Amino acid sequence: MVVDRGLLAPVRAGVPIETLVSDDAWIEAMVEVELALARAQARLGIIPASAAEQITVALGTRRLDTRAIAEAARGAANPVVAFVQQLQRVVTEIDPVSAGYVHWGSTSQDILDTATMLIARRALSTILTDVETAVEALARLGRAHRDTPIAARTLGMHAVPTTFGARVANWALGLRDAADRLRRVRDHGLPVQLGGAAGTFASYIECARGSGGELAGASATEIYTRLTDEFATELALPTSVAPWHSVRTPLADLAAALVTTSGALGKFAVDVISQARTEVMEVYEPAGAGRGESSAMPQKRNPVLATMIRSAALQTPALASTIYIAMLAEDERSPGAWHAEWQPLRECLLLVGGSAHTAAELADGLRADTDRMSRTLALSHGQLVSERLSILLTPLLGRVQAKAVLQAAAFEAEEKGRSLADVLAENVAVREHLEVAEIHELLRPENYLGLAPDLIDLVLDRT
Amino acid sequence: MVVDRGLLAPVRAGVPIETLVSDDAWIEAMVEVELALARAQARLGIIPASAAEQITVALGTRRLDTRAIAEAARGAANPVVAFVQQLQRVVTEIDPVSAGYVHWGSTSQDILDTATMLIARRALSTILTDVETAVEALARLGRAHRDTPIAARTLGMHAVPTTFGARVANWALGLRDAADRLRRVRDHGLPVQLGGAAGTFASYIECARGSGGELAGASATEIYTRLTDEFATELALPTSVAPWHSVRTPLADLAAALVTTSGALGKFAVDVISQARTEVMEVYEPAGAGRGESSAMPQKRNPVLATMIRSAALQTPALASTIYIAMLAEDERSPGAWHAEWQPLRECLLLVGGSAHTAAELADGLRADTDRMSRTLALSHGQLVSERLSILLTPLLGRVQAKAVLQAAAFEAEEKGRSLADVLAENVAVREHLEVAEIHELLRPENYLGLAPDLIDLVLDRT
Amino acid sequence: MVVDRGLLAPVRAGVPIETLVSDDAWIEAMVEVELALARAQARLGIIPASAAEQITVALGTRRLDTRAIAEAARGAANPVVAFVQQLQRVVTEIDPVSAGYVHWGSTSQDILDTATMLIARRALSTILTDVETAVEALARLGRAHRDTPIAARTLGMHAVPTTFGARVANWALGLRDAADRLRRVRDHGLPVQLGGAAGTFASYIECARGSGGELAGASATEIYTRLTDEFATELALPTSVAPWHSVRTPLADLAAALVTTSGALGKFAVDVISQARTEVMEVYEPAGAGRGESSAMPQKRNPVLATMIRSAALQTPALASTIYIAMLAEDERSPGAWHAEWQPLRECLLLVGGSAHTAAELADGLRADTDRMSRTLALSHGQLVSERLSILLTPLLGRVQAKAVLQAAAFEAEEKGRSLADVLAENVAVREHLEVAEIHELLRPENYLGLAPDLIDLVLDRT
Amino acid sequence: MVVDRGLLAPVRAGVPIETLVSDDAWIEAMVEVELALARAQARLGIIPASAAEQITVALGTRRLDTRAIAEAARGAANPVVAFVQQLQRVVTEIDPVSAGYVHWGSTSQDILDTATMLIARRALSTILTDVETAVEALARLGRAHRDTPIAARTLGMHAVPTTFGARVANWALGLRDAADRLRRVRDHGLPVQLGGAAGTFASYIECARGSGGELAGASATEIYTRLTDEFATELALPTSVAPWHSVRTPLADLAAALVTTSGALGKFAVDVISQARTEVMEVYEPAGAGRGESSAMPQKRNPVLATMIRSAALQTPALASTIYIAMLAEDERSPGAWHAEWQPLRECLLLVGGSAHTAAELADGLRADTDRMSRTLALSHGQLVSERLSILLTPLLGRVQAKAVLQAAAFEAEEKGRSLADVLAENVAVREHLEVAEIHELLRPENYLGLAPDLIDLVLDRT
Repeated sequence: MVVDRGLLAPVRAGVPIETLVSDDAWIEAMVEVELALARAQARLGIIPASAAEQITVALGTRRLDTRAIAEAARGAANPVVAFVQQLQRVVTEIDPVSAGYVHWGSTSQDILDTATMLIARRALSTILTDVETAVEALARLGRAHRDTPIAARTLGMHAVPTTFGARVANWALGLRDAADRLRRVRDHGLPVQLGGAAGTFASYIECARGSGGELAGASATEIYTRLTDEFATELALPTSVAPWHSVRTPLADLAAALVTTSGALGKFAVDVISQARTEVMEVYEPAGAGRGESSAMPQKRNPVLATMIRSAALQTPALASTIYIAMLAEDERSPGAWHAEWQPLRECLLLVGGSAHTAAELADGLRADTDRMSRTLALSHGQLVSERLSILLTPLLGRVQAKAVLQAAAFEAEEKGRSLADVLAENVAVREHLEVAEIHELLRPENYLGLAPDLIDLVLDRT
Repeated sequence: MVVDRGLLAPVRAGVPIETLVSDDAWIEAMVEVELALARAQARLGIIPASAAEQITVALGTRRLDTRAIAEAARGAANPVVAFVQQLQRVVTEIDPVSAGYVHWGSTSQDILDTATMLIARRALSTILTDVETAVEALARLGRAHRDTPIAARTLGMHAVPTTFGARVANWALGLRDAADRLRRVRDHGLPVQLGGAAGTFASYIECARGSGGELAGASATEIYTRLTDEFATELALPTSVAPWHSVRTPLADLAAALVTTSGALGKFAVDVISQARTEVMEVYEPAGAGRGESSAMPQKRNPVLATMIRSAALQTPALASTIYIAMLAEDERSPGAWHAEWQPLRECLLLVGGSAHTAAELADGLRADTDRMSRTLALSHGQLVSERLSILLTPLLGRVQAKAVLQAAAFEAEEKGRSLADVLAENVAVREHLEVAEIHELLRPENYLGLAPDLIDLVLDRT
Repeated sequence: MVVDRGLLAPVRAGVPIETLVSDDAWIEAMVEVELALARAQARLGIIPASAAEQITVALGTRRLDTRAIAEAARGAANPVVAFVQQLQRVVTEIDPVSAGYVHWGSTSQDILDTATMLIARRALSTILTDVETAVEALARLGRAHRDTPIAARTLGMHAVPTTFGARVANWALGLRDAADRLRRVRDHGLPVQLGGAAGTFASYIECARGSGGELAGASATEIYTRLTDEFATELALPTSVAPWHSVRTPLADLAAALVTTSGALGKFAVDVISQARTEVMEVYEPAGAGRGESSAMPQKRNPVLATMIRSAALQTPALASTIYIAMLAEDERSPGAWHAEWQPLRECLLLVGGSAHTAAELADGLRADTDRMSRTLALSHGQLVSERLSILLTPLLGRVQAKAVLQAAAFEAEEKGRSLADVLAENVAVREHLEVAEIHELLRPENYLGLAPDLIDLVLDRT
Repeated sequence: MVVDRGLLAPVRAGVPIETLVSDDAWIEAMVEVELALARAQARLGIIPASAAEQITVALGTRRLDTRAIAEAARGAANPVVAFVQQLQRVVTEIDPVSAGYVHWGSTSQDILDTATMLIARRALSTILTDVETAVEALARLGRAHRDTPIAARTLGMHAVPTTFGARVANWALGLRDAADRLRRVRDHGLPVQLGGAAGTFASYIECARGSGGELAGASATEIYTRLTDEFATELALPTSVAPWHSVRTPLADLAAALVTTSGALGKFAVDVISQARTEVMEVYEPAGAGRGESSAMPQKRNPVLATMIRSAALQTPALASTIYIAMLAEDERSPGAWHAEWQPLRECLLLVGGSAHTAAELADGLRADTDRMSRTLALSHGQLVSERLSILLTPLLGRVQAKAVLQAAAFEAEEKGRSLADVLAENVAVREHLEVAEIHELLRPENYLGLAPDLIDLVLDRT
């Protein structure tokens, strides 16, 4: 029985993230966690070295049955109990005694939480690579178009001139911010979890003390530190200051980094959609065999990459909110709150992973049509530079008159389809201060770009 | 590549809902929709009868490759384009001419939306059955315990007496409300979608007029009505007054019914969790092989069914919010909003389907421990009937004095572990109006149940 | 201390909804509920008739101190305890005995929930009026433009022709659906709440039985029915089959109706924004003194009404999700879930009320620029009718060749800026079947409108 | 017209946060921002020094009319246009020329965004203080009870022993994490915003170049850096690498820190609620006049502080999700997305501020009832140490037999109400390895605390 093969989520169907966070990947990570624990315990003399070896051998050659574990998970409300039973069966086949040391001292949550951190680290690395690839592509695009004037739009209306490079810099800024946050969480925010039944670590201590190993006489804190360090080293994850079964900061941090990334990707997408529309067509998505086709309309070239990225960005905030709600985890393990994290987190990873991958492709192949940009810029007959005149005329005519003159001129230019410069050139009050040629020069969009040409460098040099 | 086999969602792993809403089920429904359209068009002479037959034959014997369609879906941001290509290939193999009539006049959204309605209807029927089964089981349970006194708790504290039957009636009330809403949406809220490229139906009209069939000379409205009726009849879905490509009321209604059901199920679950906890243990979940076990603690019997139901109820509100956000669908088809509905809706159906099924089992097997109920009721030494004395004494002593007397008595009873009746029996002001025996009688919880014993019948007779 | 005067919510600042749902309105409604209860109890002989009169007199002339109640609410986690204390003080001043009958038998939740229903009914009526006003305005607009051709856009790209009337019909359809749902909830979904301390109604029964009135000997069910009926009649609200302290269906229904309305309003807004943008300018928002101005750019006329409506529609789904989460109300009254409903519900009412009011104004004053519509329609050189040719040519040339011919022609027309008709007129395969004049006639957008001109009537006649 | 005086939000009614984020506070912050800008521009010679002085003087003595601005905000969909008009009127009264320099070069979003950062910094400082106060109180409480054994609960059931100090350490851990995140955002995440009409900074450059001041000949980047630095210094906020009108990382970071804090506070609250319930009563909320009273039940002492904190924690995740959704801000300023941030952010600040304040009080006054803790611990007759025996017996009896023996013993102890130690002492297999006294000693909860006594120090020493 397969629920999801990606059919309802084109944004990530066939994208590498799927493999990293599939149910099978989760099982695989759980196996890695159990092995890491066994090895760490063996190294500290808590279990026999041979047990760790036998467990490793047994698990190296066998695939577990993910679906059977999933169905059996209903018995415990989590998949670890059934998973451990399968593990023990597998190890028992080659060495019944070693099977007793599988999952030694552990509770389900230790294994599942640590496996989740492992998967998250890999997923975040992949996402980060895609985000960085997108930033590099945007750096090229933004630098190539640092001086290409386009109309800046606010509330959908032409506002003042900007450059296409400045717009690209906005995208790059959001994605650099996202990359910073992904990196911080990946490198520091994904600790191992070792707490035993209820976060007191008592079971691991019992195992250590009963073992006759080097930690048999150690203090609780020492055992915690040593075992957690070994375990964390095995998995290349950070240790944790204390068990965090019911203190879900790592999940909250993960949610924040993912949804922030998703928002930055979504910002990129909505801008592409805005500039790709038929009436604008300033940008085109990269071409590809069959891409952007409609099942009904032969002429269509839909902005499908941006559409998929946006569809993901519309879903992640709600998924993050569930992870945040699950922080209200009662007692030492919540009946239901912990369990509510799993699927939303996976879905977040899938959506962000899928859209980061898609964004890397979009950024790399996005084409700018500079002719269209020029033509669109001219649509408002110079009105989008009227702010500049306002600044210039306010000290000369006074605030109130300056505004009145410009609004009247704007209105006339709009009504009659004339250029704002021509209309203002006929205004006596304006002409007292400005020559006709000056007015025309002042109102040329490319003369009022401000910081726009510099933004791509400002944004990318910042770190 | 399989993303989801249910591992992270025990609430629905192996539950029938999975089969109904899997990716394969969606493909199957899309096939049904294309067949229904072909048959409807054939019946109205829009396509040759033989074409509908050949299409039916061709599709009857072949399974489509869901994963290949999913991966190809990235080209169009939706799976229908690739799906139709597969369909056409399959039909072409047995009859190339008929292949031209596959998807005739349709746009992707017509097929996917209608398939979604078909799947939703089936899923809702299954959910409804489980909800009704749960209500019936609760009816039995509630009637059996209509007079079993328990402590009502508000803000976690014993408040006044109620009965276990009244508490069960609360669960039944919520589930009956949910069933009403599910039924209404299932029966009236899931219309077919036929709009053509952008909801003008022009393509279907073109097909009809060019066909020489009975509708060749019909008006646009007539063609819409006739074709939609035939199509809807084929699928046993309601027609729609107009295409609804970008007017997403059916999705909103679906989300509302699902999340309301989920809330009612969640209410049941949180109450069971509250009453099952070690310090209360008034109820037990039904036993089952291996159920409720912990991977660490041999003695545990966890309320796993309620835990799973609650985990689902914590996730659905956020998923519904995404479906609601997607109502902001720009123009005739949104770049991204439509696409953001699919996965959240499926996940909602899975979670509600899984938790309804789980709730039916929980309701059927829930055991009440009436001894524990009595003992718990006695915990507060009669204090939970003090409201009654307050009502009685207010007219006798005046509001202010009555409150003062009762708070003082409550405090003393609490401090000294005495029964409230004994303390009040020593109070001169009270004794002016009440005999000792009267006081004791008044403070017996089973004498202050109010409407509680009647609630299960009130709630269940209401429709 | 005033937190909110509307500064951060222009969508509802100064709109009637603010008055209906302000803190003062809530206090006023709570007073009405207490009065209704006193009168209902007096009418049934549960309290003296004089008590109800004195309470009415006392409350008729005094304003309560909302802020003092708000601050005191921290003592009980709800405002009713402090509110009742203020009430009792006011009544005590004129009649201490009657003061004892204030809030007689009630719990905080009875009063607050019923007051919420009262406020919701009024707010929904106001919202409904605005929605209906908007629908009427859209009916006029849609009928005036039933035949005005515009480009339908899917994924931001011109797809096929439609009419402006059809687009307006989409808006009307969503709003009619919303109105139906608002009406249903307003008329049937907002019941009174009378349950006593924990929903057993025991306190009211105690009051009735101790009163010597007509219900002194009545059964629990009879007292419930009679008192609830009288109470509901006083307030013109529906009765309820049973107390619903912890069964929050009315809140869920309210959330669903509000967020669905918000979605329909938001759909209207995003379409206006799409058509108002500088490159399209097919529609204009109604003019108004100072409206749409920018603080920086004199030429701007921003679509501010649509912007405000959209800002509301982006907020309501999340607020609704909180109301849904609060359905997980433990026991007979939840510590925190009930309390989490209040502010999100009020905010929802404000946002939907504000945006419905704004939409009525927008619908009434929206201007269509038919010249711009024509010019925009011509942008694609006839390509947006290519679907029609596809339908026509598929049976003539075969599916595969028809698609190839049309894509090649579309590509050439696009590249060279020629009309699709001219390009196709040169194609030998096409010309075997179609005359040049025929091709041109087929590709005229106004000849491929399908059902579009009929939609406004279909949508508005449906009820 | 006042919408909100705190009536529906006891968690923050009368708490300092209300003053910091009220509408009036926002207006005040906007005034500060305009003054800071004027002073920064004066210092750089962009406007006359006298203008900055006159503006300062004029604004020092006048209060603006918040409500009038709020209502007028509907004209522009934001309050800044009307706000600036009021400012200019006020300054005009004393110096019309200087009035021309108010808001010089600015767009609405520069002012509102910077004001929001200012308010957020103050609010975060206040929240941080309360969180740190709570942590200190928890440190005392946790250290006092580092060795007090209690039952750890997982899924609501007694699991193994822990200590009350360990439980408190969990609360402290979450709050320390939250404090770290609040501090990081407060100190580094709240930059000023200066972008001009559309983020190109062109207007400010125009003002600088036309001024004849020291920056008249400076490069765009230099002007940006200098003016932003001066402006940021005035407000004690960080500068920003580039304008961020439509790159909303600061809002996302703010949302993340707030909702993470809210989650940590909520975790504290749900645990208090769990331990305060009548059947447990291991902890009591601090007493206070009138606190925790019910309007119906004289005996009640409700956990109202925890209830209020939880009610806030249930609301913030959804509010954060709206802030995240608003990251999808089209173009250079979105029609609606920007506007959707304001109210949810304010509400988040209120809820987190209110609940942090409430939590400081709760942490400080929380009383532990160690007698009840002991009695509750004994409820399971030693079963909550059975994990320990499992670890001990597994190597001795083998995994399968050990589990069977313990489950049977657990079952018998439970059924007969005997202690687990007594039952096991009769088991032959067990007695082969363990003496009776040993069994009893092993099963004493205080002998199986693991790391619990150390946790409060581990958690609090970590930074």
